[in-house]
Amino acid sequence: MMDQNGARELLQAVADGRTSVEQALLKFRQAPFEDMGFAKPDYHRALRQGMGEVIYGAGKTTEQIRQIAGAMLARGQRPVLITRMDAAAAVEVEKTLPLRYDALSRIGVIGDMPEPDGAGVITVVTGGTSDMPVAEEAALTAEAFGNRVERIYDVGVAGLHRLLGHTDAIMTARAVIAVAGMEGALASVVGGLAGCPVIAVPTSVGYGASFGGLSALLAMLNSCAVGVSVVNIDNGFGAACIASMINHI
Amino acid sequence: MMDQNGARELLQAVADGRTSVEQALLKFRQAPFEDMGFAKPDYHRALRQGMGEVIYGAGKTTEQIRQIAGAMLARGQRPVLITRMDAAAAVEVEKTLPLRYDALSRIGVIGDMPEPDGAGVITVVTGGTSDMPVAEEAALTAEAFGNRVERIYDVGVAGLHRLLGHTDAIMTARAVIAVAGMEGALASVVGGLAGCPVIAVPTSVGYGASFGGLSALLAMLNSCAVGVSVVNIDNGFGAACIASMINHI
Amino acid sequence: MMDQNGARELLQAVADGRTSVEQALLKFRQAPFEDMGFAKPDYHRALRQGMGEVIYGAGKTTEQIRQIAGAMLARGQRPVLITRMDAAAAVEVEKTLPLRYDALSRIGVIGDMPEPDGAGVITVVTGGTSDMPVAEEAALTAEAFGNRVERIYDVGVAGLHRLLGHTDAIMTARAVIAVAGMEGALASVVGGLAGCPVIAVPTSVGYGASFGGLSALLAMLNSCAVGVSVVNIDNGFGAACIASMINHI
Amino acid sequence: MMDQNGARELLQAVADGRTSVEQALLKFRQAPFEDMGFAKPDYHRALRQGMGEVIYGAGKTTEQIRQIAGAMLARGQRPVLITRMDAAAAVEVEKTLPLRYDALSRIGVIGDMPEPDGAGVITVVTGGTSDMPVAEEAALTAEAFGNRVERIYDVGVAGLHRLLGHTDAIMTARAVIAVAGMEGALASVVGGLAGCPVIAVPTSVGYGASFGGLSALLAMLNSCAVGVSVVNIDNGFGAACIASMINHI
Amino acid sequence: MMDQNGARELLQAVADGRTSVEQALLKFRQAPFEDMGFAKPDYHRALRQGMGEVIYGAGKTTEQIRQIAGAMLARGQRPVLITRMDAAAAVEVEKTLPLRYDALSRIGVIGDMPEPDGAGVITVVTGGTSDMPVAEEAALTAEAFGNRVERIYDVGVAGLHRLLGHTDAIMTARAVIAVAGMEGALASVVGGLAGCPVIAVPTSVGYGASFGGLSALLAMLNSCAVGVSVVNIDNGFGAACIASMINHI
Amino acid sequence: MMDQNGARELLQAVADGRTSVEQALLKFRQAPFEDMGFAKPDYHRALRQGMGEVIYGAGKTTEQIRQIAGAMLARGQRPVLITRMDAAAAVEVEKTLPLRYDALSRIGVIGDMPEPDGAGVITVVTGGTSDMPVAEEAALTAEAFGNRVERIYDVGVAGLHRLLGHTDAIMTARAVIAVAGMEGALASVVGGLAGCPVIAVPTSVGYGASFGGLSALLAMLNSCAVGVSVVNIDNGFGAACIASMINHI
Amino acid sequence: MMDQNGARELLQAVADGRTSVEQALLKFRQAPFEDMGFAKPDYHRALRQGMGEVIYGAGKTTEQIRQIAGAMLARGQRPVLITRMDAAAAVEVEKTLPLRYDALSRIGVIGDMPEPDGAGVITVVTGGTSDMPVAEEAALTAEAFGNRVERIYDVGVAGLHRLLGHTDAIMTARAVIAVAGMEGALASVVGGLAGCPVIAVPTSVGYGASFGGLSALLAMLNSCAVGVSVVNIDNGFGAACIASMINHI
Amino acid sequence: MMDQNGARELLQAVADGRTSVEQALLKFRQAPFEDMGFAKPDYHRALRQGMGEVIYGAGKTTEQIRQIAGAMLARGQRPVLITRMDAAAAVEVEKTLPLRYDALSRIGVIGDMPEPDGAGVITVVTGGTSDMPVAEEAALTAEAFGNRVERIYDVGVAGLHRLLGHTDAIMTARAVIAVAGMEGALASVVGGLAGCPVIAVPTSVGYGASFGGLSALLAMLNSCAVGVSVVNIDNGFGAACIASMINHI
Repeated sequence: MMDQNGARELLQAVADGRTSVEQALLKFRQAPFEDMGFAKPDYHRALRQGMGEVIYGAGKTTEQIRQIAGAMLARGQRPVLITRMDAAAAVEVEKTLPLRYDALSRIGVIGDMPEPDGAGVITVVTGGTSDMPVAEEAALTAEAFGNRVERIYDVGVAGLHRLLGHTDAIMTARAVIAVAGMEGALASVVGGLAGCPVIAVPTSVGYGASFGGLSALLAMLNSCAVGVSVVNIDNGFGAACIASMINHI
Repeated sequence: MMDQNGARELLQAVADGRTSVEQALLKFRQAPFEDMGFAKPDYHRALRQGMGEVIYGAGKTTEQIRQIAGAMLARGQRPVLITRMDAAAAVEVEKTLPLRYDALSRIGVIGDMPEPDGAGVITVVTGGTSDMPVAEEAALTAEAFGNRVERIYDVGVAGLHRLLGHTDAIMTARAVIAVAGMEGALASVVGGLAGCPVIAVPTSVGYGASFGGLSALLAMLNSCAVGVSVVNIDNGFGAACIASMINHI
Repeated sequence: MMDQNGARELLQAVADGRTSVEQALLKFRQAPFEDMGFAKPDYHRALRQGMGEVIYGAGKTTEQIRQIAGAMLARGQRPVLITRMDAAAAVEVEKTLPLRYDALSRIGVIGDMPEPDGAGVITVVTGGTSDMPVAEEAALTAEAFGNRVERIYDVGVAGLHRLLGHTDAIMTARAVIAVAGMEGALASVVGGLAGCPVIAVPTSVGYGASFGGLSALLAMLNSCAVGVSVVNIDNGFGAACIASMINHI
Repeated sequence: MMDQNGARELLQAVADGRTSVEQALLKFRQAPFEDMGFAKPDYHRALRQGMGEVIYGAGKTTEQIRQIAGAMLARGQRPVLITRMDAAAAVEVEKTLPLRYDALSRIGVIGDMPEPDGAGVITVVTGGTSDMPVAEEAALTAEAFGNRVERIYDVGVAGLHRLLGHTDAIMTARAVIAVAGMEGALASVVGGLAGCPVIAVPTSVGYGASFGGLSALLAMLNSCAVGVSVVNIDNGFGAACIASMINHI
Repeated sequence: MMDQNGARELLQAVADGRTSVEQALLKFRQAPFEDMGFAKPDYHRALRQGMGEVIYGAGKTTEQIRQIAGAMLARGQRPVLITRMDAAAAVEVEKTLPLRYDALSRIGVIGDMPEPDGAGVITVVTGGTSDMPVAEEAALTAEAFGNRVERIYDVGVAGLHRLLGHTDAIMTARAVIAVAGMEGALASVVGGLAGCPVIAVPTSVGYGASFGGLSALLAMLNSCAVGVSVVNIDNGFGAACIASMINHI
Repeated sequence: MMDQNGARELLQAVADGRTSVEQALLKFRQAPFEDMGFAKPDYHRALRQGMGEVIYGAGKTTEQIRQIAGAMLARGQRPVLITRMDAAAAVEVEKTLPLRYDALSRIGVIGDMPEPDGAGVITVVTGGTSDMPVAEEAALTAEAFGNRVERIYDVGVAGLHRLLGHTDAIMTARAVIAVAGMEGALASVVGGLAGCPVIAVPTSVGYGASFGGLSALLAMLNSCAVGVSVVNIDNGFGAACIASMINHI
Repeated sequence: MMDQNGARELLQAVADGRTSVEQALLKFRQAPFEDMGFAKPDYHRALRQGMGEVIYGAGKTTEQIRQIAGAMLARGQRPVLITRMDAAAAVEVEKTLPLRYDALSRIGVIGDMPEPDGAGVITVVTGGTSDMPVAEEAALTAEAFGNRVERIYDVGVAGLHRLLGHTDAIMTARAVIAVAGMEGALASVVGGLAGCPVIAVPTSVGYGASFGGLSALLAMLNSCAVGVSVVNIDNGFGAACIASMINHI
Repeated sequence: MMDQNGARELLQAVADGRTSVEQALLKFRQAPFEDMGFAKPDYHRALRQGMGEVIYGAGKTTEQIRQIAGAMLARGQRPVLITRMDAAAAVEVEKTLPLRYDALSRIGVIGDMPEPDGAGVITVVTGGTSDMPVAEEAALTAEAFGNRVERIYDVGVAGLHRLLGHTDAIMTARAVIAVAGMEGALASVVGGLAGCPVIAVPTSVGYGASFGGLSALLAMLNSCAVGVSVVNIDNGFGAACIASMINHI
């Protein structure tokens, strides 16, 4: 594989007359679609989007998490975010790294949270208290990406006055993350109040015909309110990424 | 099959000594579960529930509708309600019977609507104008069963102020029928406002991931509001029956 | 946010001539949909519907349950109902509060059950003995809300004589709660016998193609009997709320 | 491919000493799984099961139907049954063949129905009148296969007295075919009454959450009654084949 | 509830002139559909179908199983069959009752198996060895109901020669029970060979797109072979009941 | 209902001393959640979000479309957008209103398109040419809301070089709308290239296991690329609304 | 966009000293992932895979088909294959181009079929005659791609002898395409006989619980036979592409 | 059952004149479809396909695995492959047999891996690291069947440059196995690059709307790239069998 140095050397060889134009052209042609050092590594792209690197903890061993986190710290990454991390893994990682672990969202953070540098506020709204783990995954992720976050929890649509008491926070947000399980109606009601994009996160909260979040997912996809788009069930992290993008435009 | 007269004659024979007790007992035993004239025909049960007879027009020929309606009129039934009736069938039936046909709900009525005799008001609410055919099936059916009906249409949750302008009518109803397609959130919001049972009717309004009303159905079943129960997709008639029962207790 | 005192002060300022009518109007307009202290808290609405407050125990820690229950007791609430409560949590709560725990329905009660004040009887019917946990959740909830309850258990439609032996109790009920898993046929048969609303509760009882209660749910939604509406799978509590509403009209 | 004559010739060659045993063995081995004339053609198997040949008319052209029917008549088959046949095709076929067409079941018959030769009676039960096309497909097929058929239509479980008036016919049947759409509860109730196998046929009758017969299908598969098995949605023909097998044992 | 003695007394009162005919008629009318002692208890029906009583062990406590079994033994029932019984429960029951437990099928039997009294043989076929627990539930149940059973296991359609080596046993059976998971093709192949009814039992064997037996279930319902009907996933017991009915006609 | 005038009069009465503060407070309290004329009509909210009013043409009669459009034009709305409009309806509307109709997207426009006033460019990408109707619904809607739109069509992931030839347009967009049916992989590939939010629109393009767009919908919800959120199947309009919001922040 | 000439010129400029190495490097870096003339157009890739270009006729206008076909003919492509083409479109195209149209498979061909140049034979097997349109789409496509094809139609597994009579053709094929609807069992049986890859094509043939081919699809995915992979429902074309690849290795 | 010796004896009797031709014919006829010793056992077929025998470890006891492996070793089979084997079972088997266990793929191998004898290379590609267990099941199986395997892991489509850096390995493979969960887009992108058959393996990696691999499965079935076929979710073994067949043609 020809990396950036290889490309430079090849061009130098052309400049020096050591390689003919046609030979150089052939070598470039033989590398179609290949990573010639030009392609930005993923973390470059992530940073360009205003988002630091994140370790998806689910399915990783404690040792794997520790190694990846160590490498990221060595590269200067601050903070290091670890999502979907078991409490047991957190206990282990804390032994050697300055991890702060949030049991509710199952997020671990190493290093200080950044100062908010987004243009506005991201408002995270939940239908019930059971949706809070997903909401906190969104909120902490958004904060780690440099966003100011306002939390409005347990304002399900069956008790509208609770939600309506927070109309201002919804109307003035730069982006709203609406987190709800069961019937997922929160997304539509919030979408009707908000003037900004609403990222809806269905949760697997519920039982019976909630079918692990499918009901909330379908309801949110069918929202009659404009401005509502949907991410995967329980995907608080993904919603925060989008909201952060919008807040950093 | 032993009908009521047969039973009376058998008992008379026992009284007269023409039949022994054991013989009579045997005859009764041989008729377990059978309709001995005691069982009330369906229309009796229907009337006991405050609901007249109804002709389900879908799949019936014009001639069948005419014959059944004629028999019901001959029996004194007023009004005769025909649901899910094609406009073409209505044109034909009108030629010989004094039918009034409502094209929106596809309901035909023969005879005057009764004076309301229910205890209170049944409020029918819809999310959008596209839900009106189902809502009108519910409203006209409820009126034909002797209920006062208040219609509040096109008050979907994405524009809460429209719904909240009708809070009184929802709070003071004896029963509410909430008709909505797409995300079906209306049932939860109305359920949170109402103090009476809310019968939710998912509609097949929508496209794509509404899956013919499935999304609204699931959302309504998962309603976080107390007092909400659900009937089949587009089943305005069934919702009206339940609401009428509640209004005639 | 303008609360009730703020509203009073604003009106006083108008009365005192310190604020003009138009200025006051503007302030009210600027607070659309907001909670001005007028909105009734949820427990008010619940009480208005004849139903006391209830603690949904699933997902709550023992400590959370104890605190919420303590607060409700302090407010004078009697009885306090805790649904979906683990036996382990019950053992803990019993140490400090006079809890009575029903292991079958997983309901805990603190304080005496109220005298029935409903107009009639709520009849709870089950298809099999396996449906009893859901049925008892419904029955105990209904009793806690002041309803007289008649239990008719294990009268599945495959042995009609068992069900038909209780026709009177079904025909004279003010509301029937029909609890069944597997094919859910009980709702239709009961719906055909009853003259009152039937709230059908599909249960997750069954295996294979019962798909966690989906089969019973679909069957009940398709019931050919009038008067049948459906709540979520295993939602005995929700069915009891509706039945209690009907019984307290 | 070695047919029966080929096998006979090979054996003769062995008998005549023209072919060695090992050579013959090799030839037989080289024909693994092949049809050596021993396999019975399909119509032999069908006849052995007491069932004549049937033409599945759906998707066949009028000309195809006419040719197949002609060949079957030439072979002496009586009667020839054509299922799922369009009325238009029937009109065409009637021009050259003595077809009797039943528009309800979409079955065409050429030749006289046979005298019943089954051991008992097959009872066909339906929940509603809309299930009759499927029921008649079953009934006519059963009659064409030599069974005595009793029809009990429109005895849905929401009006039990109608069904219970026919308890005898269900209890004394050799096999029962229970045809129902919507919630499919008929199969369970009939299964509880019958002492013989019940073949349940879900129909696509219904709307909304009937999902084209899926609800009835699932309900029937979950039947709590012993003796109930299920065939495909609307498959009256298949149910009749099984019932006829049972009636001809 | 009026039982048989009550009915006799009432008739006697009529005979004695102590009760008028109309009064008696009224009393009978007031008991429509009720169990007047005429209805046969379930075990009568079960016996009439050639099947003894069975205890469905799943979800029952060891103590419940012991009590029900004791009552059945006291009533003279032999053998007593307990299905879906945990090994742990079996260990407990064995302490006080002469239980023989089959760990594969999770069936417990108390008392001797009956001599076969069915007309022919029930053949149980499986696609793989993993289907054997369901197959043995069917086979042992059938034997307990007085049937001769032939087992042909692990003859899946991907190795046809294994199945074809048993063609005789399939062709001469009185009923075949085809047990298969994954793609469920066994039912169609066996249905094509057999001349008797084939009861297909889909199993939950498989992974991924088998969706807990759904794939096999759907395949079996769509079988192109005549004579195939289907029971619930893993329902070996239900299949045996039907096969036993057919074998005892 | 108290409207704005009523509120003003009440305040005036307070100012005049004709009504006491407490009486006024009570009257306000009695109107919880009600529309006091303060609530902004929907089109206000829509305008605040940078989006003009739109007529959803599906299910509306030509006359209804004409009337609504006329009212909007009278109110000064420019342009008036009509989505999901049949060609036949367009022909009719064109007779009296200066409609320009785009048959591909089924969008009609009355009045000039606005000058783009968004901050950047919205890029609309499709997998195939069959996705173009949905893509054009998005593109024209976005243009009508004042956005500059770049169209990159038929760049499905099975021919990566086509897509990669447009990397710049994707990387520099303010928002990307990714429209694809079948396997919906486009959203993930585009999401990996883009640095802005990607709104994914599954289309119903495809056959068989595409299940009307369900496959694409699920794939998009499971996108491993950050920044991807999803709207309903074929909902090009909804995607354009969100993209326009992002482009007008 | 930098094409091949642009790249050559840039390299020449480096060779000539007109451009510095770093400047050239920068220009190459600015073109990441772009089509520099190196990427082969799609028809090149298709040809490399031994498959000519194909026009997917569904959703294309007659005029579009004619233009694309004309361009392909002008480029020397022989034959031109048009799949999923309506008969009406064929009539139109035939007016100006020498099209041969096969109504069964809805495939149109312009130009002579090529001589087979594959290594062996592709065997196409169907369960029923109704599967023939999909099978012929596969067979004609394979022939157009230079494969010898053997057709074995209507050999469903319910009549094994029909299939077993063709064991040789299955065992000696280079690839088998197994086309079946309903229960899709053919794939497993054929997979058990064949020694080569079997590409299974579920068809939408069937009714009721076939759910448009879903049952066959699931069954084929769960095949217990080794060597079976699956393509989309009714995708005869796709299966032929894979088989042709295997036959041209 | 007549085995090979029986057939030989029967033929000898014909040759000796001890049995007539017709009697022999009859005996052969009475054994239709039966295994006359001609049918090859499964392992013969497997070997013919270039694949040794494999033990499917899931659901087998350690003792069963040991016995089957012992028998295979005794028959000379090398290597013996055991798939889906628990680590605990491996520990036990290692005590008596020279097992090498790979914990990632859960594959155990006894005996040396064979020298590659396939024509080319099988390339195994995964979207993420979580897909590696399935990929390794495929890779190790392929190696055990005599294939050279190239692994390209963690090249998901959201970071195209990673995948494009391996274009050569994909373009030059004899068969590609594409393993991916979540949105499954890898199959389409790889299918667009490769010139050989691509066997797509959806994995159950993901959460929420991945529905256990269903999303990836559907996406892969809908792939717009030619040459892609699909096996069951997580079925790395099955994919390797097909790839090995293609590589050994």
